[in-house]
Amino acid sequence: MALELTFIPALAIILIAAAVGRLISRALKQPAILGELILGIAAGIFIGFSTAGGVTHEPLFNVAGIAAESFEPIARLADIGIILLLFLTGLTINLREFKKLEVASASVAGLGVIVPFILGYLVTIGFGFSNIVALFVGVALVATSIGFSASILAEMGMLRSRIGTLILGAAVIDDVIGIVLISTIVGLTVTGTVQFVEVLLPVLLLLSFFVISLTAGIRVFRKFSERVGLGRENLLMLGLIVVLLFGLVTQEIGMAAIIGAFVAGLIIGQSHYARRLREHISLIGGGFFIPIFFVTMGMNLDIGVFTSVNIGAFAVALVIVAIAGKIIGCGLGARISKFSGRESLAVGVAMIPRAGVELVLIKLGLDHGIIGTDVASAILLVVMTTVLIAPTALWKALKNVRKQGKA
Amino acid sequence: MALELTFIPALAIILIAAAVGRLISRALKQPAILGELILGIAAGIFIGFSTAGGVTHEPLFNVAGIAAESFEPIARLADIGIILLLFLTGLTINLREFKKLEVASASVAGLGVIVPFILGYLVTIGFGFSNIVALFVGVALVATSIGFSASILAEMGMLRSRIGTLILGAAVIDDVIGIVLISTIVGLTVTGTVQFVEVLLPVLLLLSFFVISLTAGIRVFRKFSERVGLGRENLLMLGLIVVLLFGLVTQEIGMAAIIGAFVAGLIIGQSHYARRLREHISLIGGGFFIPIFFVTMGMNLDIGVFTSVNIGAFAVALVIVAIAGKIIGCGLGARISKFSGRESLAVGVAMIPRAGVELVLIKLGLDHGIIGTDVASAILLVVMTTVLIAPTALWKALKNVRKQGKA
Repeated sequence: MALELTFIPALAIILIAAAVGRLISRALKQPAILGELILGIAAGIFIGFSTAGGVTHEPLFNVAGIAAESFEPIARLADIGIILLLFLTGLTINLREFKKLEVASASVAGLGVIVPFILGYLVTIGFGFSNIVALFVGVALVATSIGFSASILAEMGMLRSRIGTLILGAAVIDDVIGIVLISTIVGLTVTGTVQFVEVLLPVLLLLSFFVISLTAGIRVFRKFSERVGLGRENLLMLGLIVVLLFGLVTQEIGMAAIIGAFVAGLIIGQSHYARRLREHISLIGGGFFIPIFFVTMGMNLDIGVFTSVNIGAFAVALVIVAIAGKIIGCGLGARISKFSGRESLAVGVAMIPRAGVELVLIKLGLDHGIIGTDVASAILLVVMTTVLIAPTALWKALKNVRKQGKA
Repeated sequence: MALELTFIPALAIILIAAAVGRLISRALKQPAILGELILGIAAGIFIGFSTAGGVTHEPLFNVAGIAAESFEPIARLADIGIILLLFLTGLTINLREFKKLEVASASVAGLGVIVPFILGYLVTIGFGFSNIVALFVGVALVATSIGFSASILAEMGMLRSRIGTLILGAAVIDDVIGIVLISTIVGLTVTGTVQFVEVLLPVLLLLSFFVISLTAGIRVFRKFSERVGLGRENLLMLGLIVVLLFGLVTQEIGMAAIIGAFVAGLIIGQSHYARRLREHISLIGGGFFIPIFFVTMGMNLDIGVFTSVNIGAFAVALVIVAIAGKIIGCGLGARISKFSGRESLAVGVAMIPRAGVELVLIKLGLDHGIIGTDVASAILLVVMTTVLIAPTALWKALKNVRKQGKA
């Protein structure tokens, strides 16, 4: 009768899917994101997913009978989820720690970007996809998801060790490279032809934005945070205003809003607000917006595509090069920076997980019609496999490093 | 280029309006909501507000050039804001404290509901509005906003005194009466004629829902909270799932989702999760969703209507009966419960502020075409005036009570 909120059933189902996914993940000692994605896929099979944004996926069995338009507000909540995920990534980075191993981190990140990119590109071309799709898939294999490896390093008390700092530093650099590459590739493919001026101007503007933010921006914000004490609610509100304004700037430049969100996080992360705001954003993001993003990502995907032998084989090949690419590229980078063989292997393994940025890329690719659900599903398989195997593999690799240290 | 999030500019402006409103309120020592509403009105004048939900308000000066459809996702965030506001109100109530002064609270609340309702009804009829509108305005004057008076009581260290408990208890009862009346009146006016069976069934279902929730519900949830420890994010997620499911139940019954949200708060408020979840919801609600609700409420309103002499006079008359109604009704209720004259006056003053429930009512009335922006703006004037004068008035009234105690 009274004000009917049509989005309530859809939102309730998605939050329940996230909660059940987390429960299962915890029971099986797997990262939360894995359960959220899998439950999202299950939810997609039963209730489908569709928004005016263009991504449409009919349910196999429409048990809940939820109208497609109910998902529209949910998709916007998921958008806020992506923004908060990148904001939180920026907030987590300690630029001072990172500067200590700058050169080594850069070579690990650099080779760890180049090798998977080339391998991904070649495999995609080999399976008969277009050049644009191959570039896109290559970019999709670039960015490491820092969260998983960081939590393993923390658990083993190696977060602030030499190898820990190297891994974190390299992950930051390849995140930045990944995010810039994503904006560029999406910009490139949307405009169709590669117009040098059209591409160069936004990149130059973005670079200026980066430089100004990371010099003057950090200083101004740190001073402000020293002088102005803020309560919980007001600090959260300030953080959200800054992240929206930065997102607006990068969006107006022609890049994605998430880049601005990441930079906003980097700046505030060096101020006195860092610890408290990180707590607030991890609560509001991790307890609401980000799981909605992960679950809806799962719901977007159509597992039916894997029944095609070609796509199935492509997905498996992609998983292999995603893993091999990071072990070879990052391992080589660490080795030439004079880390031991075992340490270099651990660094390579630590860089395997792909999650946050890749899921953003899948969404962008689908929204702009660059890739279809077949390629999107193959990339999702990479996300799920790497997230599934990397934590245990890193655990073992770091134990080997320790044994060597004691021997 | 990449994923363009069209809601970002609108959301940024609304959050900035909320932040500036809070700053001004703090500087002038007024409650935050007042600044948020006023800045919302200002934002409405410059950028307007419009959603598919039906409430449309053209800007006087369209400075930002924001398209109307950008507000659609914002309106849904505001909906979540209302839900969290009522959830938080439920979470704040300690049922055990309340039971001590049950009878006195009930007479304060009862008379404090009846007198303003009758006065509001008569004034509205006197100004030539229809019977339905008069019933609606009467209901709008019923519910006290517990937050303002509670914060004054806390500041004076009188929250757990006899008079403090009486005020809180009475405010809870009139909140519940207000929320039930709102659902009934909106149900009544939407169906047009007063069909007894159509109205009785939902009310009976709602009563059963209340009884089951407040007996078995509280017991089950308390047991669960004793056994299951939850981290921050998971507790927030659980709370949000419960509030959505309860909202879904009352919505399916034919009442507003906010009633379910309030009951969910009452139940969880008696469990071991209460304190932590209240903190989480006050952060995510107070730092994001609830200010969006207040600012958009301000944006919805058209101050142009007050240029009509009739509406201006009506609004002023409404403010007078809103204040007089609570002082007379609640004061009388306290006096017959053997509180002193000064104490009874303080109780009446404490019950003056109207805010949360009234703003929900304005939205419902506009959405369903029961009232126009003229009546809505008059009710908003009541909200703003009472919120503005009540805190200072209560402060003085409580000081008088104290003086008496010492004499």
